[in-house]
Amino acid sequence: MQVAFTTEELLSLLKPREVRGLTTKTISGIAGLAEAKPGDLSFLGNPKYKAEVTSSKASVLLLPLNYEGLPGTDQVYYLVDNPSVALAKLCSKIEQNLWPKPAPGIHPTAWISPEATVSKLATIGAQCVVEAGVVIGDYTHLHGQVFVGRGSCIGAHCWLMPGVVISADCVLKDRVRLQPGAIIGSDGFGYEFVGGKHVKIPQVGNVTLENDVEIGANSTVDRARFSGTVIGEGTKIDNLVQIGHNVTIGKHCIICSHCGISGSTTLEDYVVLAGQVGVGGHLTVGKAAKVGAQAGVNESVPAGTMVRGMPAQPYMTEQRLEILRRKLPELFKRVQKLEEQT
Amino acid sequence: MQVAFTTEELLSLLKPREVRGLTTKTISGIAGLAEAKPGDLSFLGNPKYKAEVTSSKASVLLLPLNYEGLPGTDQVYYLVDNPSVALAKLCSKIEQNLWPKPAPGIHPTAWISPEATVSKLATIGAQCVVEAGVVIGDYTHLHGQVFVGRGSCIGAHCWLMPGVVISADCVLKDRVRLQPGAIIGSDGFGYEFVGGKHVKIPQVGNVTLENDVEIGANSTVDRARFSGTVIGEGTKIDNLVQIGHNVTIGKHCIICSHCGISGSTTLEDYVVLAGQVGVGGHLTVGKAAKVGAQAGVNESVPAGTMVRGMPAQPYMTEQRLEILRRKLPELFKRVQKLEEQT
Amino acid sequence: MQVAFTTEELLSLLKPREVRGLTTKTISGIAGLAEAKPGDLSFLGNPKYKAEVTSSKASVLLLPLNYEGLPGTDQVYYLVDNPSVALAKLCSKIEQNLWPKPAPGIHPTAWISPEATVSKLATIGAQCVVEAGVVIGDYTHLHGQVFVGRGSCIGAHCWLMPGVVISADCVLKDRVRLQPGAIIGSDGFGYEFVGGKHVKIPQVGNVTLENDVEIGANSTVDRARFSGTVIGEGTKIDNLVQIGHNVTIGKHCIICSHCGISGSTTLEDYVVLAGQVGVGGHLTVGKAAKVGAQAGVNESVPAGTMVRGMPAQPYMTEQRLEILRRKLPELFKRVQKLEEQT
Repeated sequence: MQVAFTTEELLSLLKPREVRGLTTKTISGIAGLAEAKPGDLSFLGNPKYKAEVTSSKASVLLLPLNYEGLPGTDQVYYLVDNPSVALAKLCSKIEQNLWPKPAPGIHPTAWISPEATVSKLATIGAQCVVEAGVVIGDYTHLHGQVFVGRGSCIGAHCWLMPGVVISADCVLKDRVRLQPGAIIGSDGFGYEFVGGKHVKIPQVGNVTLENDVEIGANSTVDRARFSGTVIGEGTKIDNLVQIGHNVTIGKHCIICSHCGISGSTTLEDYVVLAGQVGVGGHLTVGKAAKVGAQAGVNESVPAGTMVRGMPAQPYMTEQRLEILRRKLPELFKRVQKLEEQT
Repeated sequence: MQVAFTTEELLSLLKPREVRGLTTKTISGIAGLAEAKPGDLSFLGNPKYKAEVTSSKASVLLLPLNYEGLPGTDQVYYLVDNPSVALAKLCSKIEQNLWPKPAPGIHPTAWISPEATVSKLATIGAQCVVEAGVVIGDYTHLHGQVFVGRGSCIGAHCWLMPGVVISADCVLKDRVRLQPGAIIGSDGFGYEFVGGKHVKIPQVGNVTLENDVEIGANSTVDRARFSGTVIGEGTKIDNLVQIGHNVTIGKHCIICSHCGISGSTTLEDYVVLAGQVGVGGHLTVGKAAKVGAQAGVNESVPAGTMVRGMPAQPYMTEQRLEILRRKLPELFKRVQKLEEQT
Repeated sequence: MQVAFTTEELLSLLKPREVRGLTTKTISGIAGLAEAKPGDLSFLGNPKYKAEVTSSKASVLLLPLNYEGLPGTDQVYYLVDNPSVALAKLCSKIEQNLWPKPAPGIHPTAWISPEATVSKLATIGAQCVVEAGVVIGDYTHLHGQVFVGRGSCIGAHCWLMPGVVISADCVLKDRVRLQPGAIIGSDGFGYEFVGGKHVKIPQVGNVTLENDVEIGANSTVDRARFSGTVIGEGTKIDNLVQIGHNVTIGKHCIICSHCGISGSTTLEDYVVLAGQVGVGGHLTVGKAAKVGAQAGVNESVPAGTMVRGMPAQPYMTEQRLEILRRKLPELFKRVQKLEEQT
């Protein structure tokens, strides 16, 4: 990553509420507080690292409004509402420079069915496959080696990275962003046990990804048995996550890596699942509920609550049990003492 | 998904044991009991939803033989041996309409080694790669962007979906179905620690998938160090599952999402692993054993038993321990009271 | 796998310290002790299987130097420093025969940007995509359907298997080996919650894989928010592992299947993570620390220690708690008895 920002460019981009100190350096890199060298920009995003600000060698530091203290020589503090958001603005600018939007058009090595409808403003990269009946909207970018199966419909301003597979009849609304290797519309895992064998139940539903959904690398979203698996607007899903068939996920949820959500379960809006959580089938996780890492959810979770543990239960209950579990050696001794006294 | 079934077509396809009521509607959709509208077909597959039958707006309902009660106006009940199996029949019919078997032949953008042997009745899709020495049987369908490495042998009526990779020298028998992104024959994870470094042990065995095996999206099956990793007839594996090298899996097993099975372990026939289970190496999980979600299996599991927990132990033992764990706050109080009385 | 080794070839390749017995058989296979037939070579790699040596039908057995006992008729024991390493040598020989290094050159179906620099000694397989600014070193082999994004730099003697994706601006040093479907340089999972929505923080850093790194099938390594995600020399990563953004992994670590490492965490050299471990963000796992299967690491782990459990704690502490937990039924009875006596 190569960057070069003058102080003037930074001021105009980041619009700090307050500026302390000054630097003559051109900013040529971004780094964490401890690793930054002169010429770098750094920031305090997590209060955990506050003590590292004064010793940071960064030339420009993005700090929260309530930060007290003065910069060193040839160093400047920009006080902003939210240092992480300010950094995001800067990174967004860098991203546009690094990876400018490709020109519209279809790469000569891509294969597009004559029965597909691809916007003149879309970009279809090398070795892509687009089957019959597919519709692809304006400014959407299929990077290399993307597969879109028959009848699927992709909106505008989407970015499908290399190796993404969209199976038949799925729907992606606008600004959907899929990391490499994400699979949308694989068969749901449904069998009936008949005569000593597992007989496949064909999965003839589809998947809908609403506006602004993002899905991580090598994650999988199964198509519904019938009707649809739906992921709501603005929901962000990390890598290697499994979404089962007929799952409904609300708006603006966060689902971290390695989570698995079993069939026909509903997550309401603003749910957060930490990493490696498992959620059983036919359950509801209520609005804005939070589930701790590695939890095993085997009953519905009320809205607004926080659960953890396996099986998951209210956060404070599990916390207390964990503390008592750690006191078991002491408890066994206390009981032994009582027995000796009896 | 667009469907249109008349009552006559449904009767002839589903052959219900008993019919109650009648409807004039053409069936144009399938939906869950609560979501169904007039014109939809619904079903009672899970007794949990029994109460929703009477209020369902579906025009046709598939119900178990012992269901009591009468349909509403313009509504018909079909009583069948197994509503889920009946639905599967219907979905299978829909699937054939939606995704008719493609014509045999090799897509012009596929690359087939001149030293490969592909049946005239097979279908090889866009951008596929088939290396030297590969054999592909009748009616097998490689969807787009499938890779088959040198010397691998694929039987008849298989369906390999986009992005599937079959590494060298693997064997797929008949009717094997692989979801997008499944990897068959990646190297086993084997190293020897010599002189401060991990030295790779080349993995020169292979993988065999027996008849009717199905493997989920982005799952991985490692090739053996030598000899073979084998998955038995009719076994169904969900998404994002890891099967280690030299593992032997029996017939008709069910392995849910995110399970990992370490090297050289054996699962006998009819084993069921729920989601996110880990099984250690060099163990045996006996015939028809069941392992609960997120369990960590670190010793062999006797046939016919059910285990859960981390580390896994018999289901009832773990259940009892979990109940007692939840009573720890009470136990600490009881001990304290005893101490005060002493 | 077809092999054929005469006794002379084996002696010259394996150089045993001691030979007991003799066989006239040509070795045509490798198998486990219990499964081996005459004509096979077998070995004692795990002391657990020692009892199987005397009944093994293998014609050649690789055994540790301290093995006592004599071979049967037409059977030979080779005593070697490390039977697994000896076997690795043999498998390496077999691997070279099975999968000889392909000739250098670019497959006619690959697409290489005119602005990429590919060594004349590299091999680029069918349907690969190599974008502008990419550099690929001598003897590196891109198997079929590999994607390398703009500006990435790949060293010498690397092997990227089918379906691998290298995103933009990443660096692979020498002898890096990536299993099928591995994703290097997917976006880190970073959002700021602003106005009820998760706003993406562009991830403009990269990933560096040092010399001799190996990464398993369908594993994912996220690019950094800025600066880099780094995996140190000789580290080996299994299948379906998630490495978050800005993670730093030291040299010669082992990370087993389904592990997930959250953002900005550091693993020092020689760390070992067993399967399905989760490590939280912004932590340090110290040099040569070991983490047990399915552990949930939510605080930093001191160098040289061993932890397990969820949340993870020192191995012996957790072991003791687990033993006491299993004695809870007894403890409840003892407390009840005390209450009755009072």
